Amino acid sequence: MSIVVQKFGGTSVGSIERIQAVAEIIARTYEQGKRCVAVVSAMGKSTDQLVGMAKEIHPHPSPREMDMLLATGEQVSIALLTMALHRKGMKARSLTGWQAGITTDCVHGRAMVHDVDTETITTALDQGEIVVVAGFQGISSQREITTLGRGGSDTTAVVLAAALGADYCEIYTDVEGVYTADPRVIPAAQKMDEISYEEMLELAHLGAGVLHPRSVEAALRNKVKLVVRSSFVNESGTWIKGENEMETSHHVSGIAHDLQVARIKVLGLPNHEETLTRLFGLLAEAHINVDIIVQSEHDHERVDVAFSVNEEEGLEARQVLEAAQSELDFAKILYEGGLAKVSAVGVGMMARPGVAAKMFATLSEAGIRVKMVSTSEIKISCVVEREQALEGARRLHSAFGLDRIEVKV
Amino acid sequence: MSIVVQKFGGTSVGSIERIQAVAEIIARTYEQGKRCVAVVSAMGKSTDQLVGMAKEIHPHPSPREMDMLLATGEQVSIALLTMALHRKGMKARSLTGWQAGITTDCVHGRAMVHDVDTETITTALDQGEIVVVAGFQGISSQREITTLGRGGSDTTAVVLAAALGADYCEIYTDVEGVYTADPRVIPAAQKMDEISYEEMLELAHLGAGVLHPRSVEAALRNKVKLVVRSSFVNESGTWIKGENEMETSHHVSGIAHDLQVARIKVLGLPNHEETLTRLFGLLAEAHINVDIIVQSEHDHERVDVAFSVNEEEGLEARQVLEAAQSELDFAKILYEGGLAKVSAVGVGMMARPGVAAKMFATLSEAGIRVKMVSTSEIKISCVVEREQALEGARRLHSAFGLDRIEVKV
Repeated sequence: MSIVVQKFGGTSVGSIERIQAVAEIIARTYEQGKRCVAVVSAMGKSTDQLVGMAKEIHPHPSPREMDMLLATGEQVSIALLTMALHRKGMKARSLTGWQAGITTDCVHGRAMVHDVDTETITTALDQGEIVVVAGFQGISSQREITTLGRGGSDTTAVVLAAALGADYCEIYTDVEGVYTADPRVIPAAQKMDEISYEEMLELAHLGAGVLHPRSVEAALRNKVKLVVRSSFVNESGTWIKGENEMETSHHVSGIAHDLQVARIKVLGLPNHEETLTRLFGLLAEAHINVDIIVQSEHDHERVDVAFSVNEEEGLEARQVLEAAQSELDFAKILYEGGLAKVSAVGVGMMARPGVAAKMFATLSEAGIRVKMVSTSEIKISCVVEREQALEGARRLHSAFGLDRIEVKV
Repeated sequence: MSIVVQKFGGTSVGSIERIQAVAEIIARTYEQGKRCVAVVSAMGKSTDQLVGMAKEIHPHPSPREMDMLLATGEQVSIALLTMALHRKGMKARSLTGWQAGITTDCVHGRAMVHDVDTETITTALDQGEIVVVAGFQGISSQREITTLGRGGSDTTAVVLAAALGADYCEIYTDVEGVYTADPRVIPAAQKMDEISYEEMLELAHLGAGVLHPRSVEAALRNKVKLVVRSSFVNESGTWIKGENEMETSHHVSGIAHDLQVARIKVLGLPNHEETLTRLFGLLAEAHINVDIIVQSEHDHERVDVAFSVNEEEGLEARQVLEAAQSELDFAKILYEGGLAKVSAVGVGMMARPGVAAKMFATLSEAGIRVKMVSTSEIKISCVVEREQALEGARRLHSAFGLDRIEVKV
C-alpha cells in the first residue's frame, strides 16, 4: 500500500478548529487507501511566545536549552492532532522526533538530519495507524533534543518521505501553491501546476517563502515528489518534481522579488589572490550571507569589490569590514541601503540567451536602472532601487507571458 | 560532597520573576557547597490550559496522548529555569524525565516509577553542573512518555533523592511548612518544626494538601528526609522524618478537615462473606475511592453497609450501585451529601486511649453530632455536617493544646 507524507505548518494547526480541519484532510487521504504519516509544526505563534519568554530570562539563551524549550511546541501539536484523529474514529499515534527515529548531528538550533530509523513508524503503519510526527526536531548521538532550524518541519517531512519510500510528500500551507510571482503584489500572478526542483530552489532562495530551500534540496537529492497545497481550500496545488517528468517548460517560469537588499562597495583592495578569501572569510565568520558579488579591476595593484547582502545584516557587514581595514588594506567603504532584487527563474532559459537581453530591455523601458546583475543557469537577478522593484517585477511578469488571461463571461 | 534535591511546584515557577527567584534559591544552595538537583513542575496554570485544549478536541482523550501533551509543561519549565541559572553565571543542564533515567510502568496518566538510572545526572553533577529535572514524567519500557499523575513532581523528587543518596529533599511550595491545621480557617494554627512520616501520611490523605501521600510513602519507604518550605520567604520550614529522629511528640500533632464528603448507606444486603467483596469491587472497578466503611448486622440474613466518599464521586458511586441492585440483592440506597470530615492526627495517641474520648466530648459540647467514626493507630476521623466542621476543627485544635500563644509586646 502506498505511503503519503503530509506536512502541516504553524498556521494550518493554529487553532483547535484548524487542527480539526487538518484531521479531516488526513482522514480523507487515509480513506482513499493510503498509509498516512503527518508531520506538524508548532501551533501558530507558540514558538514566538516561547522565544519571548526565553529572551526575558537571558539575552543569549544556550542553544541546547532553546532546543529543549522549542521542541515542546511540536509535541503539543502532535498530541492534539492525534486526539482530533481519534475523535473521527481513526487509529492514530503521535511520535516526537526522537521516538520517530530522527537522529541528527549535535549542532543545536540548526541540526542536520543524519539518519532516520523508520522501524517505529512502519510498525505503526502496519497496524493501520496514522502516524503523527513532530516536525523540526530530532535527537543527537548524545541523546540530546535538537532542532533543525528554519524550515525544519518541511525538512522532516521530506527526509521521512525519502526514508519511507513514500509516493509523494504534501506540504500544506496557507497559500494554494507556488505562483509565477507574489500574488499579493502582482495580481496577474498565476498558480503553477508544476515546477522543477531547480526552479523551486531558486525561487525558495529568492524569498518566495513557500518552501525552505533546505527541504527542496533534500527532495531533489532523494527524488521525493513534493506537492505544495492549501490546508484551507481543497485545490490541487503545485507539483515539484524532476525536470524530465514535467509536461511543459516555459522560458521563464516565475518572477521573484526581495525588498531587503543593501550593497557594499569596498574600494582599493590589494590586487592579489588572497583578497577575496580574506574579505569573504571575515563575513562568513560573522555568519553574514553574501548574495551577488562583483569584482572590478582598478589597475594592476588595486581592485574594487561590491556585494549585496540582506539589508538586516548590512550595517553589521560594514562594521566587520571597517574593523579589519588595516588587515584587509583597502581605501574606502561605500554603503547603500534601500535596494531590492528582481529575478526571473526558469529552466527554459538555459538554451535561450535572449532572456537576459529581454529582461534588461524591459527594465530599461520602465526607466529602472540595474545596479548589479547575477546569473545562473536558470536565473537572472537584478539589483535595483527598492521603490522601482515592484513595478519592475510586474513588467517582467507581463513581458515573459506569465500574466493570467482574464476570461470575460 | 553532599547532594540536595529541591522540588519547585507550579506556583513557585509560575512566572518569569518566580523562575528567577527559584534560580536564586538554587544558586544559594550551590554556593553552600551542595550538589544540587532541582525538580520542577509545569508553570502555574499551563497544565490546566493544555487539558482545556485537549477537552475541546476530545471528551475522553487517549491517556497516551494526554501524557504526550502534558509532559511539555515541565519541559518548558526546566529549559527556562536552566536559562535563569546560566544568567546567574551557574553551570546548569536540563533533563526531561527520560533523559534523567526515570523509567516507569506503562500506565499512562498515573504511572509508577520502576527504576532510576542516575548515570546522566551524576555525570553532570561531577562536572559541577546544577541538574534541572522535569518532574511528573518518565519513560516506559516501550519508550513511551508517561506521567505520574497527581503529586507526580513530589514523587519524582523523592525517588531521585533516594536513588542519588541525597542528604535531604526540599519541597518548595507557596506555604511556609506543615501546620497544625489549615491556617486559612483556623488562625490559631502553628507551623510545625517537625512531623513524622506517618503523621504526614495521615495529614496528606486527609487533604492538608501540602504533599501528595504518594511522595510521603516513597520518602518513608526510602528513608528520605523531607523539608517542606516556602519558595516565597526564606524560612526554615517543616522537617518530615522518622519518629525516632524526632525531638518531641505531642498526643495530637494536627487537626485536618475535608469539606467534600458524602455518605451512602446500602440497606438490606445478604449477610454472607461475599457481600463486601462484591460491593466494593464494583466501586473499585469504577475507580471510586471509598474512605470510611461501617457495617452493621441487621439480623442473620441481612446487613446494612454505610461508607463515605469524596462528594465529587458520590452520585457516580450511587449510580454504580443502583445499576447493580439485582446482582447485589439489596433493599434500598440512602444518599447524604453536604458532609465533612474532621480528624486528629498524632503518633502520641497510640499509647493514650483518652484521645478519642476527648475528641467526642469536645464535639458534643459544641452540639456537633458525629455521623461516622474511623480510627487508625495515629488518627481519629469523624464525619459531621459540613456547616459544623470548621467550628469543630477550631475547638479540637484548641482542646488538644495546639493553639499558638499570642505573645503580647
